[in-house]
Amino acid sequence: MSGITVGVDVGGTKIQAVALPDEGVAGSARVPTPLEGVEALVAAIAEGARTALAAAGSGGLAAVGIGMPGTIDTAAGTVANSPNMPGFERATPVALARMVSEALGGVPVKMGNDVDVAVLGEHRLGAGRPYRDLLGVWVGTGVGGGLILGGQPHRGGGAAGELGHMLVKPEGRLCSCGRRGHLEAYAGRGQMEARARQLESKGRRTILFRLAEKRGKPRVSSSVWLEAIERGDRLAIRLVDDAVWALGVALASVQNLLDLEAIVIGGGLGDRLGVPFLERVAEAMRPQLFVSERPPAMLPTAFRDLSGAVGAAVLARE
Amino acid sequence: MSGITVGVDVGGTKIQAVALPDEGVAGSARVPTPLEGVEALVAAIAEGARTALAAAGSGGLAAVGIGMPGTIDTAAGTVANSPNMPGFERATPVALARMVSEALGGVPVKMGNDVDVAVLGEHRLGAGRPYRDLLGVWVGTGVGGGLILGGQPHRGGGAAGELGHMLVKPEGRLCSCGRRGHLEAYAGRGQMEARARQLESKGRRTILFRLAEKRGKPRVSSSVWLEAIERGDRLAIRLVDDAVWALGVALASVQNLLDLEAIVIGGGLGDRLGVPFLERVAEAMRPQLFVSERPPAMLPTAFRDLSGAVGAAVLARE
Repeated sequence: MSGITVGVDVGGTKIQAVALPDEGVAGSARVPTPLEGVEALVAAIAEGARTALAAAGSGGLAAVGIGMPGTIDTAAGTVANSPNMPGFERATPVALARMVSEALGGVPVKMGNDVDVAVLGEHRLGAGRPYRDLLGVWVGTGVGGGLILGGQPHRGGGAAGELGHMLVKPEGRLCSCGRRGHLEAYAGRGQMEARARQLESKGRRTILFRLAEKRGKPRVSSSVWLEAIERGDRLAIRLVDDAVWALGVALASVQNLLDLEAIVIGGGLGDRLGVPFLERVAEAMRPQLFVSERPPAMLPTAFRDLSGAVGAAVLARE
Repeated sequence: MSGITVGVDVGGTKIQAVALPDEGVAGSARVPTPLEGVEALVAAIAEGARTALAAAGSGGLAAVGIGMPGTIDTAAGTVANSPNMPGFERATPVALARMVSEALGGVPVKMGNDVDVAVLGEHRLGAGRPYRDLLGVWVGTGVGGGLILGGQPHRGGGAAGELGHMLVKPEGRLCSCGRRGHLEAYAGRGQMEARARQLESKGRRTILFRLAEKRGKPRVSSSVWLEAIERGDRLAIRLVDDAVWALGVALASVQNLLDLEAIVIGGGLGDRLGVPFLERVAEAMRPQLFVSERPPAMLPTAFRDLSGAVGAAVLARE
């Protein structure tokens, strides 16, 4: 396919687009995610794609890839069950690919799940390039994952990679899905914040909420978590310790099951806490590994928060 | 490949061989596993192969497959780290394939890990035939597993499938590997027996050891477990309940990660406790499944304790 492929990562707060000529990122764009529904989102995606294309300079638009949270039917180009996306919350699939294609003059559009495409991007062009068997763990509001096995994405019946809902502690903390003791209940930023509020209401002190307020943010963001830890906030440190422990338990079990070559850790919190966090997770895994002399390589993402957009472009190109 | 392929499953107490013409099992043989070392084992494997071939009637021997516990290098045809096999315990690989080939007049011999080949056999010719994404769980003295993904075995770096060493309870029961809280510590017959002895020594009553003695067995076999449960032995019932719980936890995590079509449960204990046991494990998984409306099919093996020999023949044939 000649020309430039644009990848668009549609998140709950921002839309990110990158323009990919044959190799490397040539231009990018960032647009706030509109909350007015399907039409507004289509327009914003098209705007992001056009801006990224223009930033890349010359070259026609060959194809567009979109990564988005929710249940994606790649063949049909539809999205459903995307709880934080106004207009896409329900189980009825919305034909987003067709709509974006029409808004961009009929260019081919391909869709994938946001975490799946981010892992694909890191595998094809980023940190995962040297490996054939790879797990991508995206630690953000929730904890998602994507598998590359034998060099190809493994999606199972379509819902593979729900790493966040692996059990790490029977009858443990409440997860976003309503069950208990899942990895996401310990390592997802949403549940970590909920736990911090609960402990604060019981009299424990923390600067987490004051820092978030100062930045004018309604939520405790990844950078707030980082700052709180760096300032020695004991409650934040303890909750990140718990996240490290839970990731160590779950990833060691995955490693014992799949004997992978590498694990890439990304997502908002993963990217922000970076290599020191990865090293602690690796340390927490070690005593649980069956083949302890051959642990998987633990890698940060190459594209940070652009992994999703890069992967969406790769999806469209392949 | 024309002619008959023989598959040999080498276990700690018995060697089982089957002769496979183009389709189905045509003859089988069972030989006790000799404990005198490598040469005696080679002779016993050759004897088993010849007897199975003879039982199949006419037809020349085209190839032999061997399944055996331990670290198997399929390309090199070697075995190492097989703790219950005299002569094969050490990390130094033993070239068993070449030796068996010589003992059988130069016929091609291919080797695989015992659980891997059993799962392969069930996938190609047995319970797993209709599926592309499948986990085989072998519940015996230990708990092993094998994965078929996209229709092909997934071995990762060579040690994939160590399902028994997935963590189900932090700081839980002692596992055979020396770590704590693994699936095998709850669902492996070896650790179940150790736990029963420990509870008996603390004054709990059980008929498990009396039943084993009556049958002249040094160990509590799978059939003894079944009889104890059927007779209402409360300690045996509780330990099997724990095994069901642990399998439910681990298999639900695997399902959430891989979104499989089916799980086949085999192994000595799995085969003996059969469908009622499988149904209880399925029930224990259900509340933990992320996509709960689409659980994997839970299947007993088609070949029971011949799965390994059938799969070894398949390995040699492919």
